Amino acid sequence: MSTSKYAECIRLCIECAQACEHCSDACLSEPNPSKMADCIRTDRDCAQICWDAAVFLSRGSQFSSEICHVCADICKACARECAKHKMNHCQECADCCRRCADACDEMASVAA
Amino acid sequence: MSTSKYAECIRLCIECAQACEHCSDACLSEPNPSKMADCIRTDRDCAQICWDAAVFLSRGSQFSSEICHVCADICKACARECAKHKMNHCQECADCCRRCADACDEMASVAA
Amino acid sequence: MSTSKYAECIRLCIECAQACEHCSDACLSEPNPSKMADCIRTDRDCAQICWDAAVFLSRGSQFSSEICHVCADICKACARECAKHKMNHCQECADCCRRCADACDEMASVAA
Amino acid sequence: MSTSKYAECIRLCIECAQACEHCSDACLSEPNPSKMADCIRTDRDCAQICWDAAVFLSRGSQFSSEICHVCADICKACARECAKHKMNHCQECADCCRRCADACDEMASVAA
Repeated sequence: MSTSKYAECIRLCIECAQACEHCSDACLSEPNPSKMADCIRTDRDCAQICWDAAVFLSRGSQFSSEICHVCADICKACARECAKHKMNHCQECADCCRRCADACDEMASVAA
Repeated sequence: MSTSKYAECIRLCIECAQACEHCSDACLSEPNPSKMADCIRTDRDCAQICWDAAVFLSRGSQFSSEICHVCADICKACARECAKHKMNHCQECADCCRRCADACDEMASVAA
Repeated sequence: MSTSKYAECIRLCIECAQACEHCSDACLSEPNPSKMADCIRTDRDCAQICWDAAVFLSRGSQFSSEICHVCADICKACARECAKHKMNHCQECADCCRRCADACDEMASVAA
Repeated sequence: MSTSKYAECIRLCIECAQACEHCSDACLSEPNPSKMADCIRTDRDCAQICWDAAVFLSRGSQFSSEICHVCADICKACARECAKHKMNHCQECADCCRRCADACDEMASVAA
């Protein structure tokens, strides 16, 4: 795994974490946040695991592969949830989640 | 600052963090979460700073005082917000926030 | 999964996180921390995933099982590393890691 | 506070967090990590508060100012500690800490 692959995965994890923080906050301001409860919950968990993956990768942790594996799973679930909603913040978050999931899947398969 | 004071402050930070995580989640399941948006946002931030304070205190960090100072501020804001709502999860969270704020204020004044 | 099982798993995650924070810090104060570098690194990662697992479980996250699965893996690795060192902080940390790994393994097999 | 100011502060917090994670890890691999214990401890705390500040800012939290204030304080302490050591990872970390402290000081004075 090259250094640039690490850097790119970290970048996508941080991008996804920020998209999830933003989407979660924006969902709370929607006219009917009741419909967005699952999206808010998934965003919240996805943001946290993406920040964590960025931390583990930044440290060069021996557990980077394990964290990226679970991060990819949660990103995929979050992408599925966000994709159900037509708002820009949800659609953009879904895109970030898919990109992050791809990078984390690759990292999980080769790291450590 | 005695070891037992540290342990008690850590215990109250963790209790408060858990109450905020629970309150935030329960607010999302209320019939009209729109009215709870501010509570959800405050809970979310309060949970995070309380977990952080627990981490810094558990490490015996030299910055425990600074973290406890900001933790106390956010706990007080969260207590004020939660106290506005009559649901049990909000009232119980407000109580936990007040207890944690008191312990963190004391820690901030003597630690480091 | 009963509420008390959740509460017990959260309690053991927090106990383990605190033991790892303490062990990591105590290792840095040993006469020859060079020998403790792997222990410090593993403690650091184990503390973080244990705090995370406590957060996800406190929220009743749908991803509790995934987080507990990776938490159990990292706890087992940390227990193996800590068990190599005769200092009390390492031996006590190894014990906490084993207890947390057992609880997380059980949670991973039944939650979600 | 313009959106681009927020984005720049987030960027510098993340850059600093990563520099601290890297410096802490590199210090552990130095021939005499005993001399680096304070640097490792400060890096560890600085990394955490920088990640936190990035999270609060990404959410547009009402407590961004408070978090940035304490983040700036810890960054300055970490810059002072890192500046004592001639290794590249310490000198580069000190630079990142100073840049992050400046951005957080500005954010603390105007946000919220």
